[in-house]
Amino acid sequence: MRPTWLAFDADDTLWVNEPFFFQAQDRLEELLKPYADFSEEAMVDALYRVERKNLGLFGYGAKGFTLSMIESAIELSGGKVTAQDIQQILDWGKGVMGYPIELFDEVDELLPRLKQDYRMMIITKGELFNQESKIARSGLAQHFEIIEIVSEKDPETYRKILERHAIEPGEVLMIGNSIRSDILPCVEIGIQAVHIPRVVYWQHETVDSTGNAEFGVIDSLQDLPAYLNNL
Amino acid sequence: MRPTWLAFDADDTLWVNEPFFFQAQDRLEELLKPYADFSEEAMVDALYRVERKNLGLFGYGAKGFTLSMIESAIELSGGKVTAQDIQQILDWGKGVMGYPIELFDEVDELLPRLKQDYRMMIITKGELFNQESKIARSGLAQHFEIIEIVSEKDPETYRKILERHAIEPGEVLMIGNSIRSDILPCVEIGIQAVHIPRVVYWQHETVDSTGNAEFGVIDSLQDLPAYLNNL
Repeated sequence: MRPTWLAFDADDTLWVNEPFFFQAQDRLEELLKPYADFSEEAMVDALYRVERKNLGLFGYGAKGFTLSMIESAIELSGGKVTAQDIQQILDWGKGVMGYPIELFDEVDELLPRLKQDYRMMIITKGELFNQESKIARSGLAQHFEIIEIVSEKDPETYRKILERHAIEPGEVLMIGNSIRSDILPCVEIGIQAVHIPRVVYWQHETVDSTGNAEFGVIDSLQDLPAYLNNL
Repeated sequence: MRPTWLAFDADDTLWVNEPFFFQAQDRLEELLKPYADFSEEAMVDALYRVERKNLGLFGYGAKGFTLSMIESAIELSGGKVTAQDIQQILDWGKGVMGYPIELFDEVDELLPRLKQDYRMMIITKGELFNQESKIARSGLAQHFEIIEIVSEKDPETYRKILERHAIEPGEVLMIGNSIRSDILPCVEIGIQAVHIPRVVYWQHETVDSTGNAEFGVIDSLQDLPAYLNNL
């Protein structure tokens, strides 16, 4: 069924995001090398463990990520990391918060065309202030009737958003890069979904299996109009 | 005019919040004493300067506050603060994120009574995840029809919220502890407002003058019913 509404994830769907986190993590690894002898894998595992532990207190986003990088550096260096190096980590974290927005797939030309045939919304997960800032910097806000920033993307979140706007799940197609956050919870409540695979660095957003969930896959947002025409 | 809607600020209006930030700042001062010779005033000024500088990147809230405490410690210690001490600061920051909610003015008994005569909403400023967590921990969510978490409280923010819910400014009374965030921007767009003075520690929320803005003042939320009856 052709949807009335297109709902877009933002980070890594409309613009590049995760590579900036990954780059900061790479730099952290370089910085910590002189302090201890451990593999890249051990470093990534340690950071992920600290992030997971803090997720219930910090939620998602660049500020929590920065605090977890600092905590990992203290732990992995055996308490030897210097204040100068911690300031360096803090500055990398600030870089993640303020990076220049690089749009994917000529989306700035695509969205005005889609808008002629569909109503459009953004549903994005993260820190309120930082997400608002990215949306403003993207210059894309004007194309969306609804912009929802949420702290978690589970079926209940999507259900509540649609209820609030009196939209039926069957009217919506969700487009996103994360199977875990954008696709499975939508399919579960009857929203159609289409996945755009991007390189995923963060274990947290990976899934072991998509079960028997049915959803579409496209290579690029430029393929979305053709995908829609075939529904 | 008697309002139809009561809009409550949350932090330091419904529950104690700022003292936890202030306590962390006090502890930071103690921690830094061995590193350098400076007055409490110099410490508070330095922290505020760092916070102000970072506000455009971090926004409001406990995670940004924690990052700014770490940055201030590095700066004020001349780069000598140890990793152990930075971990300590990080742990104080986590304490601010997870503090047990202490309600003001027996508000848990007051709200159900007010709900019989008014429609009620919360408008609170801060980090999405942390504000949601505090609201959940407060046990008060059930009393509110609308809960809005915003990144800034300016007239435009209030205007947009009311527009979204098709509420006229004249129908609303806002109740809050911050002249800068809860009172003046509301009065500016025709929302009635009542101020509950609490001890304010953070310079950022102070104002030099309230101009000729007209608003009410009550000592405690327990005085709200009488205040409303006199409108």
